[in-house]
Amino acid sequence: MAEEKTIREFLDELASKASTPGGGSAAAIIGAMGAALVSMVCNLTIGKKNYTEVEEEFRGVLHKAEALRERLTGMIEADIDVFAKVMAAYGMPRDTEDEKAARTQAIQAALKEATVVPLACARACADVINLSKTAAEKGNLNVISDAGVAVVAAYAALRSAALNVYINVGGIKDEAFANEKRAELQRILAGTDRMTEEVYALVKSKL
Amino acid sequence: MAEEKTIREFLDELASKASTPGGGSAAAIIGAMGAALVSMVCNLTIGKKNYTEVEEEFRGVLHKAEALRERLTGMIEADIDVFAKVMAAYGMPRDTEDEKAARTQAIQAALKEATVVPLACARACADVINLSKTAAEKGNLNVISDAGVAVVAAYAALRSAALNVYINVGGIKDEAFANEKRAELQRILAGTDRMTEEVYALVKSKL
Repeated sequence: MAEEKTIREFLDELASKASTPGGGSAAAIIGAMGAALVSMVCNLTIGKKNYTEVEEEFRGVLHKAEALRERLTGMIEADIDVFAKVMAAYGMPRDTEDEKAARTQAIQAALKEATVVPLACARACADVINLSKTAAEKGNLNVISDAGVAVVAAYAALRSAALNVYINVGGIKDEAFANEKRAELQRILAGTDRMTEEVYALVKSKL
Repeated sequence: MAEEKTIREFLDELASKASTPGGGSAAAIIGAMGAALVSMVCNLTIGKKNYTEVEEEFRGVLHKAEALRERLTGMIEADIDVFAKVMAAYGMPRDTEDEKAARTQAIQAALKEATVVPLACARACADVINLSKTAAEKGNLNVISDAGVAVVAAYAALRSAALNVYINVGGIKDEAFANEKRAELQRILAGTDRMTEEVYALVKSKL
């Protein structure tokens, strides 16, 4: 699994001319780092005597952040897999009419999957942005900057995932599916730019 | 070295209640991923028959991106080291006047180092943003989304590093040093928000 590679190995492969891992896997890691930083703020807030009032709330935030981190970590590999499926589909033979039809069908199925994976990544990143707001508002002041890093990381990952949705949805012939996924992405993106700036400004004001 | 850990190990440590690695190391990795993605676009543009005109230019971009990636990778560990120095300085004894003076001196020296490290990270990230512009303008269209991921990653890393500069510069008593570093950060940040949006919009328009 991609998450078992060292950071250096991953960066070397990312930089190489191999087509995977690419931006989709990078987005998943960046989103997972955002989730991990929310967890860090929670772990350094829970159990501290000045923060007993938010302890219960932060246990809930931690639980959600850890679930999102696990989901995003799985997407590092999922992006590689789905890209491989798209490439394999494009590589299918197209000499006969039957082959052409089978190839088209395989491409369309792969593109749908390659839309759904980054869309799920985008959704998870938007959730991380929401959690980072609570972390920034009520978390331990000693690590409040980590809530700021969490929000910009999650937002960058969300926008990266969005690019991968745009690419793949563009090739989908099922208009109803494509429009639904585009609309879903718009709903996920809505307001995240403003919220990211609010959380960042709040963190900066507390430093 | 931190870059020899697996991605999962790093994420686990980031999420834990250990104070390092924290947002500074995450920023360095995110910046390094931005640089790696610029390199990827270069590596998939150089040698392609439709891109011979930019081949020479992209060899230069690749060289710079790889140098930045190496520098940013080194900052994953540098952030951990400098944080340890700050903590060690705060932990020094302060029973006598001599001890107090030595402790204050050690804290001030450590805070200066803890300002210089994220400032260098910020500078490297701004350089990655600049390179991603060329990658987005002239790179292989098949991997142009990776230039978009590069720019948002580098910008998130830059803003993350900026938070770490703000924190540490705030504790520095040498006003001339502190003001110089604040001004330097402002110069680095200037225009990067606009350029990031330009590059992102350009990439989106090419998908």
